[in-house]
Amino acid sequence: MKKNTELRSDIAWATPEAIGVHGYDLCHDLMGEVNFGDMAFLEVTGRLPDAKESRMFNAILVTLVEHGIVPSTLAARMTYAGAPEAMQAAVAAGLLGLGSVFVGSTEGSARMLAAALPDGRGGQGAPADASLAGLAEEIVKSHRAEKKIIPGLGHPIHKPLDPRTLRLFAIAQQTGFHGRYVALMQCVADAAGAAYGKALPVNATGAIGALCCEMGLSWKVSHGLGVMARAVGLVGHVLEEAKQPMAMELWHRAEDEATAHSRGKLRGKAGGKGV
Amino acid sequence: MKKNTELRSDIAWATPEAIGVHGYDLCHDLMGEVNFGDMAFLEVTGRLPDAKESRMFNAILVTLVEHGIVPSTLAARMTYAGAPEAMQAAVAAGLLGLGSVFVGSTEGSARMLAAALPDGRGGQGAPADASLAGLAEEIVKSHRAEKKIIPGLGHPIHKPLDPRTLRLFAIAQQTGFHGRYVALMQCVADAAGAAYGKALPVNATGAIGALCCEMGLSWKVSHGLGVMARAVGLVGHVLEEAKQPMAMELWHRAEDEATAHSRGKLRGKAGGKGV
Amino acid sequence: MKKNTELRSDIAWATPEAIGVHGYDLCHDLMGEVNFGDMAFLEVTGRLPDAKESRMFNAILVTLVEHGIVPSTLAARMTYAGAPEAMQAAVAAGLLGLGSVFVGSTEGSARMLAAALPDGRGGQGAPADASLAGLAEEIVKSHRAEKKIIPGLGHPIHKPLDPRTLRLFAIAQQTGFHGRYVALMQCVADAAGAAYGKALPVNATGAIGALCCEMGLSWKVSHGLGVMARAVGLVGHVLEEAKQPMAMELWHRAEDEATAHSRGKLRGKAGGKGV
Amino acid sequence: MKKNTELRSDIAWATPEAIGVHGYDLCHDLMGEVNFGDMAFLEVTGRLPDAKESRMFNAILVTLVEHGIVPSTLAARMTYAGAPEAMQAAVAAGLLGLGSVFVGSTEGSARMLAAALPDGRGGQGAPADASLAGLAEEIVKSHRAEKKIIPGLGHPIHKPLDPRTLRLFAIAQQTGFHGRYVALMQCVADAAGAAYGKALPVNATGAIGALCCEMGLSWKVSHGLGVMARAVGLVGHVLEEAKQPMAMELWHRAEDEATAHSRGKLRGKAGGKGV
Repeated sequence: MKKNTELRSDIAWATPEAIGVHGYDLCHDLMGEVNFGDMAFLEVTGRLPDAKESRMFNAILVTLVEHGIVPSTLAARMTYAGAPEAMQAAVAAGLLGLGSVFVGSTEGSARMLAAALPDGRGGQGAPADASLAGLAEEIVKSHRAEKKIIPGLGHPIHKPLDPRTLRLFAIAQQTGFHGRYVALMQCVADAAGAAYGKALPVNATGAIGALCCEMGLSWKVSHGLGVMARAVGLVGHVLEEAKQPMAMELWHRAEDEATAHSRGKLRGKAGGKGV
Repeated sequence: MKKNTELRSDIAWATPEAIGVHGYDLCHDLMGEVNFGDMAFLEVTGRLPDAKESRMFNAILVTLVEHGIVPSTLAARMTYAGAPEAMQAAVAAGLLGLGSVFVGSTEGSARMLAAALPDGRGGQGAPADASLAGLAEEIVKSHRAEKKIIPGLGHPIHKPLDPRTLRLFAIAQQTGFHGRYVALMQCVADAAGAAYGKALPVNATGAIGALCCEMGLSWKVSHGLGVMARAVGLVGHVLEEAKQPMAMELWHRAEDEATAHSRGKLRGKAGGKGV
Repeated sequence: MKKNTELRSDIAWATPEAIGVHGYDLCHDLMGEVNFGDMAFLEVTGRLPDAKESRMFNAILVTLVEHGIVPSTLAARMTYAGAPEAMQAAVAAGLLGLGSVFVGSTEGSARMLAAALPDGRGGQGAPADASLAGLAEEIVKSHRAEKKIIPGLGHPIHKPLDPRTLRLFAIAQQTGFHGRYVALMQCVADAAGAAYGKALPVNATGAIGALCCEMGLSWKVSHGLGVMARAVGLVGHVLEEAKQPMAMELWHRAEDEATAHSRGKLRGKAGGKGV
Repeated sequence: MKKNTELRSDIAWATPEAIGVHGYDLCHDLMGEVNFGDMAFLEVTGRLPDAKESRMFNAILVTLVEHGIVPSTLAARMTYAGAPEAMQAAVAAGLLGLGSVFVGSTEGSARMLAAALPDGRGGQGAPADASLAGLAEEIVKSHRAEKKIIPGLGHPIHKPLDPRTLRLFAIAQQTGFHGRYVALMQCVADAAGAAYGKALPVNATGAIGALCCEMGLSWKVSHGLGVMARAVGLVGHVLEEAKQPMAMELWHRAEDEATAHSRGKLRGKAGGKGV
């Protein structure tokens, strides 16, 4: 029917005596030699990071691990309450909510910045510093015209500044990743603040989007970083739920309140007897 | 209806200017200070690891990240092929298969060892070295009597020895985690080999189960380590599928072969025309 | 490496002009001819139901569709709040909690009854009516001895009787499925009530477990019925969440309460400044 | 922090003696009275269907249940192979791939048609029949200009016509749902065929998108119908995998082929010997 194409994966292989991962010997080059964050870098880029990349990349992942009691951790806890024998399913349920609303803005800011500066951080065709402000104004104008939210700006709790952004950009200074994408993201924040008449500082997802661009990681990778880091955090929440549960209590409260207005009421003449 | 109990989580909090994770200041104590594996240790134990714990724990996670083309990575790739807009769903689909068949043996060996030596690695009530062999024989006998597979032994590919086990136990020697649980696991392998008349060496899941016991991590945690590490690997496979797909090809081949025997056949008189 | 075995599926095929499902012509034998419940029966048994089977089976599925605000619907709503672009993921998240705690008792009672009467409802080797009470007492005794909960009995809300059980057993009378498994389940309820000194009537999951046995459906199928029916209900909850949301509100309340005790507190001398 | 809003759900409630679902008495109005498809209609619309709606709606669901060996059923089978103790997780994994590539076109055609004829099937403002062709040409033109695929047209296997479309539209004739949305969808197919110079007939997803519009169901509902129907089919595939597995075989074949080019190769001097 269809002509066969070859199946091919370049990630890993196993023989009786060895395992290769992206060309490294798992047992001798990786285990005991690199940390979990470096291994994640290898998975998404196909190579190991240098020391500066390792520091920046691990810091990004550490930032993304834990967000406390949020919809995704609540979904994981609710799932664990029903299927405690399948912890992996509770973690998976938590991951499923990492879509456009919460984690999507990392990916969104990475896309936005990469589209504006498509030639990479060191590209010769990149505009002079002065013109980043102009690029930023165009970005803000086009988002306003299409009534789209500018990704990576503002935060409901962290005001006036997101403390994670400050720290990430400081680490970027130390590791050589505080380049033109970071500068552009800050220009976008300034331009948006001026256009909307309120402070809209770069939040953690905007900072990470910019840093992924600086590190040469695509927007798909940036979303993947959120997914893998949250998986770690979700395991933590599932373990806490096992010892100190809140799902059942939250369920009973929600059910009681949400159905109080209708309980016992059926369609019918006297509001009590059905069809 | 039900008396309310308090909702309580001790993992994290946020204020406008700071974020706390298990009592650490995320921005100043963790970001840029600890690696992704240490952050994972914090999530599952509530404290940061010391240097030896960090090395052992990161090595365990690195071991678990990548397993190549296996059912869980294929499930993730199949899912990505249908919903490329939701990478988190592809990763979640891959996690869902981390149940009793593949990842369950880490948990199984941790449970088995903890049940046999319930008082911890340094416990005074622990039996003398000599009696670990006796304990191991009891374990093998009871599994045989109940026709249950002994978790953590043997491997279809890695023969005669699993190279990951050798490396993990070597790192355990260096870091002080080569204790009584590791010794017991090796005794179990010896006893099982004698009982079944074939080599049944400790595999990577058995080694990790024993090392989790050495580190004071519960069997639930040991399962969680597999889940979080595989999430990292699944992101890698989804990113490869995006660039170099195999799901569609595999689908077409499977469908062609699996339905060739029945295609066009309906219930009915002449085997061709239906009801 | 491994000798190839054939891939084979007997469920469906497609040619340019027709689609076969379990040997039926989808377009002419099924679409417009059978209802959704009959199609589900075809999927799990490989044949279409007769009129009595159709009535009983549809009634079982209708019973299982909707359970209001419960952990699984809350997990779905939490997931939708984060990823509204992927409704299928919200439904999937809801399904993931259908494990041992809630839906497992249908499967559990089907297993328990099938083990006690393994030869099928019409089997000649089946014990006389009088001895069902004896079988029931053995079941209760063995569960008590192993400290296991007897599946399918009692309900936290529906007291003294589960109204769904009464209705399901009435339909079973009308359709010829009120046989020995139903009788045994009721004997188990009586024996358990006597043993524990409190009313433990057959609940809906126990009734459905018994009816699956009567219909010749395995315990695996009985679990599958819960899964497919709840998928329908979960779509309903996701659609309501889209119009009349509760996830975000519930999140904010839970987070506020759960972290109030620790907010702003860091490990450190004066309880305010960290490491 | 945030002002509390009320939690409210209008779907279901339970009291000790009764359960209400959208105002109906579950035990007396629904169980034994309506089929599974009618119950699904109630879940997505809040009311029971009349006889014609029931026939059309059940036919749509029956169409969507089974698609044979496809990526979503393979993802479910792969997941079941790893976690056979959690069937619900295998079904969930299968649902996760029901995104933009496969099931999305139902939603896409419903959205496209509803946008073109926003005032409902009976709306007075609807254009005369003659102008449907004009509307269709605009739709085709705008999709071509934006290089977007027109949803609901063409099929890789079903040629020259999709037999499900013929049957669905025939049932629509019998039940009074063959109205202006169906006519517009057919005009779009004609206009697209002319524009692209090849036959692009309405496929099953396009037909169902049009019929959802005819029935007053939103595009969100149309996607939900695919999700619930596939859940039924996925249960069928998981049950078949339990008896007649293909996941393990497919895994071994895929792994062997995909890694043959690299097996044993490590980064190193001579391209063959590692560390």
